[in-house]
Amino acid sequence: MSTAVNLPAVTVLGLGPMGRSLAGAFVKAGLRTTVWNRTPGREGDLAERGAVVAATAEEAVAASELIVICVVNYDASDGILRREEVTRALKGRTVVSLTADTPARARDTAEWAAAHGIGYLDGAIMTPAPSIGTPEAVFLHSGPRDLYARYLPALEALGGTHTHLGEETGRAATFDIALLDIFWTAMAGYAHAVAIARAEGVTAGELAPFAQGIATILPPLFEEFARDADDGTYSGEINPITSAASTMSHVVAVSESHGIDAGVMRSVEGLARRVIGLGHGGDGFMRVAEMLGRH
Amino acid sequence: MSTAVNLPAVTVLGLGPMGRSLAGAFVKAGLRTTVWNRTPGREGDLAERGAVVAATAEEAVAASELIVICVVNYDASDGILRREEVTRALKGRTVVSLTADTPARARDTAEWAAAHGIGYLDGAIMTPAPSIGTPEAVFLHSGPRDLYARYLPALEALGGTHTHLGEETGRAATFDIALLDIFWTAMAGYAHAVAIARAEGVTAGELAPFAQGIATILPPLFEEFARDADDGTYSGEINPITSAASTMSHVVAVSESHGIDAGVMRSVEGLARRVIGLGHGGDGFMRVAEMLGRH
Repeated sequence: MSTAVNLPAVTVLGLGPMGRSLAGAFVKAGLRTTVWNRTPGREGDLAERGAVVAATAEEAVAASELIVICVVNYDASDGILRREEVTRALKGRTVVSLTADTPARARDTAEWAAAHGIGYLDGAIMTPAPSIGTPEAVFLHSGPRDLYARYLPALEALGGTHTHLGEETGRAATFDIALLDIFWTAMAGYAHAVAIARAEGVTAGELAPFAQGIATILPPLFEEFARDADDGTYSGEINPITSAASTMSHVVAVSESHGIDAGVMRSVEGLARRVIGLGHGGDGFMRVAEMLGRH
Repeated sequence: MSTAVNLPAVTVLGLGPMGRSLAGAFVKAGLRTTVWNRTPGREGDLAERGAVVAATAEEAVAASELIVICVVNYDASDGILRREEVTRALKGRTVVSLTADTPARARDTAEWAAAHGIGYLDGAIMTPAPSIGTPEAVFLHSGPRDLYARYLPALEALGGTHTHLGEETGRAATFDIALLDIFWTAMAGYAHAVAIARAEGVTAGELAPFAQGIATILPPLFEEFARDADDGTYSGEINPITSAASTMSHVVAVSESHGIDAGVMRSVEGLARRVIGLGHGGDGFMRVAEMLGRH
């Protein structure tokens, strides 16, 4: 193992599939890498490749200037970082949390870190473990700009693109949650569409090219609808929400006529019907975002 | 108005925004065009541009070999076509129905047409009215191949791309319903993500470029997941549905912590939890399509 010039030693806490990929990319890029996992024996071939396997979290933390943690959620993360011995060992070092959780938990951890003299950056990984170390990886970061600048060269060992979304700690988690919301909702629509298609004798493979066509029309609409939302215009001139709701009721009817649960589309239609009931039937569908945000 | 050589005279029944656009495109392409709408006076400038405005539906039908109908749904369509005088006038002519409704209604109409000596093609328009006559328009068709071949040159006056999905009448409506399912579900995910982002201090405009990034990763996943569904493999190696469900619960938690309704994501998570409960927690999310299709 060669040691990369000017790059800090790094510790990776958490060796699930993602943690192992992160540690492997650091090792490959030549950073002095220490790893630790709550349950021992999860390091795979990382030791043979040159990583140091620490016996305890505090030992792992003490080995490096930069600590990357990637565990299942902040309950697990707190259970590791907020143990007194570990917290003490972290003083003066920087934690980059790539654990996915809520913006509120990220902010809470930033406050805890500040109170204990620990640098803190929050991050989100938007792509699966096999993307790590490749150009496909996508990382979002938030937190102090100077810390980000200092550790970006080390983080770039993970490959892909890194975007700093701002100093407010919660921003990476906010974008993460919002983007996962879009992703899984869209995937649910696709899985449901495949179920309907099959019930009508159409295979997923026959539907796929047309489904891909739908995906390609989304980006310009996302841009246009973002303007609608930010301007408060919600134009329904081309496609009023009354027409969208009527389409949605067709989807529900076809689905249920085959005994296929239509709960997701029933919820979507319910949002549209509520917008109409609030007197905005001539507006576009994005009026839903405004209605959802009312308190 | 010049009359296009070798193209049939065409009648358009229904002059909503879409019907007007269709008639306008036929007129522009030089087809002898007759129009009719249940409520008179909806023809806009079509008469000045050369269309004949018929006083009754039967008169409109009698004027052309090809009848295109585009009304709100098949209840409206039946109310026009199945009146005795109109049905009689349709004998020996061909109806292309571009009215959106369910595959079952399309099949029922094809049976009715066959019983009355009327040619019948079912179609779906996947793009909004302003796309008609432009390369952006997307039309799906199903029904007898010979009829489709005979009238395709006339339909091409409407611009865009035309795809014949097969002879089974319901296929155009099936693809239409399935694609609208994907589209509106994805849009609901986007509107909801914008509501969450705003509650966390992020504008729609800030989120939009990243949302577009999510949309661009969908097409290859749609193809891969279609193979999963058709092969019955549902691999969860990279992203097991247990992990997806955990992500979904984060989205629900953040949403509801801001008082934002999370009904859509609750339904999506419910599907994932049911798949896990059925013993498929190690599978990928597309197992949902298989579960939905069980009877």
